[in-house]
Amino acid sequence: MSENFRHPSPIAGAVQVIPLGGLGEIGKNTWCLRVGDDIVVFDCGFAFPNDDMPGIDYVLPDYAYLESHADLVRGIFISHGHEDHIGGLPFLLERLPVPVYATPLTLSLIEGKLSEHGLLGRVQLCRVEAGAHVRAGHLDVQLIRVAHSIPDAVAIAVDTPLGVVLYSGDFKFDPTPIDGQRTDYHALTSLGERGCFLLMSDSTNATRPGFTASEAAVGPALDRVFAQTSGRLIITTFASNIHRVQQVFDAAKRYGRRVALLGRSMVNVSERARALGYLTWQHEQFVALDALDSVPPEELVVLTTGSQGEPMAGLSRLATGEQKGLQIQHGDTVLISAIPIPGNEKAVARVINQLYERGAQVVYDSPRLGTHVSGHASEEELKLMLAFTRPRHFVPIHGELRHLTRHAELAMASGVSPQGVYILRNGDVLELREDAGCVVAQVPVGPVLVDGRLRFTRGQSQLRERQRLAHDGVVATLITVDAELVLRDGPDILTRGFIPPDDVGMRLLDEAKRRIVEVVDEAHARKNYDLSRLERQVVEATSRFFYETTGQRPAQMVFIKRID
Amino acid sequence: MSENFRHPSPIAGAVQVIPLGGLGEIGKNTWCLRVGDDIVVFDCGFAFPNDDMPGIDYVLPDYAYLESHADLVRGIFISHGHEDHIGGLPFLLERLPVPVYATPLTLSLIEGKLSEHGLLGRVQLCRVEAGAHVRAGHLDVQLIRVAHSIPDAVAIAVDTPLGVVLYSGDFKFDPTPIDGQRTDYHALTSLGERGCFLLMSDSTNATRPGFTASEAAVGPALDRVFAQTSGRLIITTFASNIHRVQQVFDAAKRYGRRVALLGRSMVNVSERARALGYLTWQHEQFVALDALDSVPPEELVVLTTGSQGEPMAGLSRLATGEQKGLQIQHGDTVLISAIPIPGNEKAVARVINQLYERGAQVVYDSPRLGTHVSGHASEEELKLMLAFTRPRHFVPIHGELRHLTRHAELAMASGVSPQGVYILRNGDVLELREDAGCVVAQVPVGPVLVDGRLRFTRGQSQLRERQRLAHDGVVATLITVDAELVLRDGPDILTRGFIPPDDVGMRLLDEAKRRIVEVVDEAHARKNYDLSRLERQVVEATSRFFYETTGQRPAQMVFIKRID
Repeated sequence: MSENFRHPSPIAGAVQVIPLGGLGEIGKNTWCLRVGDDIVVFDCGFAFPNDDMPGIDYVLPDYAYLESHADLVRGIFISHGHEDHIGGLPFLLERLPVPVYATPLTLSLIEGKLSEHGLLGRVQLCRVEAGAHVRAGHLDVQLIRVAHSIPDAVAIAVDTPLGVVLYSGDFKFDPTPIDGQRTDYHALTSLGERGCFLLMSDSTNATRPGFTASEAAVGPALDRVFAQTSGRLIITTFASNIHRVQQVFDAAKRYGRRVALLGRSMVNVSERARALGYLTWQHEQFVALDALDSVPPEELVVLTTGSQGEPMAGLSRLATGEQKGLQIQHGDTVLISAIPIPGNEKAVARVINQLYERGAQVVYDSPRLGTHVSGHASEEELKLMLAFTRPRHFVPIHGELRHLTRHAELAMASGVSPQGVYILRNGDVLELREDAGCVVAQVPVGPVLVDGRLRFTRGQSQLRERQRLAHDGVVATLITVDAELVLRDGPDILTRGFIPPDDVGMRLLDEAKRRIVEVVDEAHARKNYDLSRLERQVVEATSRFFYETTGQRPAQMVFIKRID
Repeated sequence: MSENFRHPSPIAGAVQVIPLGGLGEIGKNTWCLRVGDDIVVFDCGFAFPNDDMPGIDYVLPDYAYLESHADLVRGIFISHGHEDHIGGLPFLLERLPVPVYATPLTLSLIEGKLSEHGLLGRVQLCRVEAGAHVRAGHLDVQLIRVAHSIPDAVAIAVDTPLGVVLYSGDFKFDPTPIDGQRTDYHALTSLGERGCFLLMSDSTNATRPGFTASEAAVGPALDRVFAQTSGRLIITTFASNIHRVQQVFDAAKRYGRRVALLGRSMVNVSERARALGYLTWQHEQFVALDALDSVPPEELVVLTTGSQGEPMAGLSRLATGEQKGLQIQHGDTVLISAIPIPGNEKAVARVINQLYERGAQVVYDSPRLGTHVSGHASEEELKLMLAFTRPRHFVPIHGELRHLTRHAELAMASGVSPQGVYILRNGDVLELREDAGCVVAQVPVGPVLVDGRLRFTRGQSQLRERQRLAHDGVVATLITVDAELVLRDGPDILTRGFIPPDDVGMRLLDEAKRRIVEVVDEAHARKNYDLSRLERQVVEATSRFFYETTGQRPAQMVFIKRID
């Protein structure tokens, strides 16, 4: 995974910014900032695999750059507790146990994650309140509160000799947050007054006009659903959206319903948030899952995971009837308080249809009903962030190229010099001086594919092989010959995922064997006893035959056994 | 594929309606109507495979019901020329060469399809103008013009002793269609006056409130894009959306641009439509692909396929730089005049990002910009259709269960008796009498999976095998033993898509071989010479070992060769 190399330090009076992950289609936010001999890391996420990565569990950046500069890494600063910002931590920390700095809820979620990987107690986790400063080598780092779809989110400001570098994390400017914890507008505008050297800002919603609605707008929309529901109400949202969870508890109280929590992460995150005071409910509002039957339908809300159609989550188990102790029935209403993340649309649609099949009414048009709002800043907020901080340099982060490009346009329209706007690729080493900057080098970035216990740095051929197996299946052939290539037995053929195990398939295999016998006989007749050559000829002959008869090109594995 | 069975004819004074395809998540519209001893078929579509069907080309219904009643099938009536309504024709017609009835453009597209399958001239294709009547056995069938996103679309009305059965096809009520060919409102309302026995109506947009915008609304939106574009303009839409193609030609004329067509189906469909008079352009408006360089950027439009991110289509080839003779460059603007069909979102996003990477500006927010409108009726239109036709019975068609359910609610709210509303599953035989109806039987419906030249009726185990291969790869093992299970050679192991071909992988395989040797030695020591038992033990031992070391469960194929 790691390569041993040492990267030159920035020239005097410059800083280096290096995205290890987080750009392009795969979001696995991991950014490095180097100032002199101090490196700090912003976030450490993983990505879920694309469709063309069968069998892969997670996609990580390559941490080679950090490992080969281990002595310079002063700490990892985490902006908030979403998977695409903390998911890589166990994998990085097991190689590089540097201190992790985060706000209380974020840290609690990180603890849960490290505990699963047996790493708890082996790394230094530092709890930092929003607004506080941390010393990292020669650098002063401040966490600045921002609003997002999870509590306790912060932007990260690093004071450098050139001015402040501000990493926004994921944010929106929600002026009326559910928890009353507003974005620290004063801290942001103070940066602008002092002179912000570099702004790195969230681009997720850069193509969305206007201003993202406050989380508080969801409350009245929830009320409308509660008011129209007479039977049981099942609500699904992201477990980490504690504000939403709070609003469900609040609406339930107003409408005389009690709440049950379903799904491992819903229970886990809610308990952590409640223990830290981010979520409040009264004891009598809560129903244990095994006591559901004792609650009349019109007095019950079940809050569950699975808003993205994830097959193992609560809502999917309800949709397929696999949830122990809770069966969907006529009269139930299911509210999906979320929208599908791109790529999940079909999975979500499948769950909705399964719920209808079981007799539920499903309320899923969140954009129209107002039962979901985004956690990311839209165009007007992004322009406000630029106006607050007035950066000299600008790097759009977190988004696909189309979002980064749009955000770069917004920055230029907001007065950042076009020479100070950089759209980076993963691995780019951006070196910034007072008035100029350019990409001076590249570091390895992977992707590293996590596949069970295996890690692949260069997994492309492996993935292509798997795609071929998925598409056309595989054929294994055994040919037993003597030294002069007289066939002594077989040929034997086994297949998987190729032809159907029926008469048609049997006839095809018989004919394929006949072709192989011909190839072997011919090699014997020509006295050409080269086994590699024979193998090639067998593969060619059968590939051609299979393609002509089935239109497919299965993967081939050939054993040629010589017995004397 | 076919099973031999004969289904009882409907009881006197009843008709039967049977969906062979078109319900649930997989849209492959194929509906049968049986009246006495006459069967007519409405549409004959295929579906594209789901993500969990690797390697499958198309999904068809099982045609067993039609084949076993071949003597009763009077004809196939096609509502319009989209793939999900005509794609199954070659597969059905090669088994059951009954007459096909369709309007001129639809028929022309069918001819192209049959020609590719070598079926042209072997089946009877009957051209019927919208509004005309056809005799099918004892039945009178009328094609009634409706608006849709392809010209020449019709609903199909069958006169039965119980009243008219109306199959809507796909439709919208566009009052200002581009070609001036309005929905035949009079024919529809006349059905209402005479008494419509059964309405089968398009549910695609049943969950969308309001009235679908006219195709004519796209013109001004196109104008805005043309007005703001100074360089080359590349526009992608569905090739079959002839109205849209016409509007691009018209806007190009207004803005002094000439048009080139890129992509096999864009050229093919446009030529067919132009030959029949559905599409008009002046000779000087057209640019051949090999003459693009002679046209200044500000005077050029390239109209291409690929709005869904299809990897082989024009836009994807432009995005990856693989299109011969046309390279995307800075200054180009790409307009996606379409929205992603659910499931295609990520593929479309990838293409957009690739276009940005090459320097293009991409305009893709069609819902906001008005550069695309749907071809399907929204809620208010569906209620109008119900009000026009005042059916006694109602079957929602074409959509997922959530859409069918919503449409059923609309029908009841529109005055159809709840006892007269039926949500059918594929294969249901709905028998309708004057005042009542119920599902009396089931016929086989597949799905039949088309995989190259193979067809699978029960392909589930095959697909599961492929998914496993994709996920964890495959291991083939060869063990050569004598009659007393003394290992004579090997074991040999080959893998595909499992472990990486590096040192780690080699060490794993060496250890796996050691485990196999142990298993064989033990069998020999116990004098247990059963080869099937040995094979099972080898698979168990290596599966356990591979799972412990890699977290994966590759498919296994084992050859045990006994030599004496």
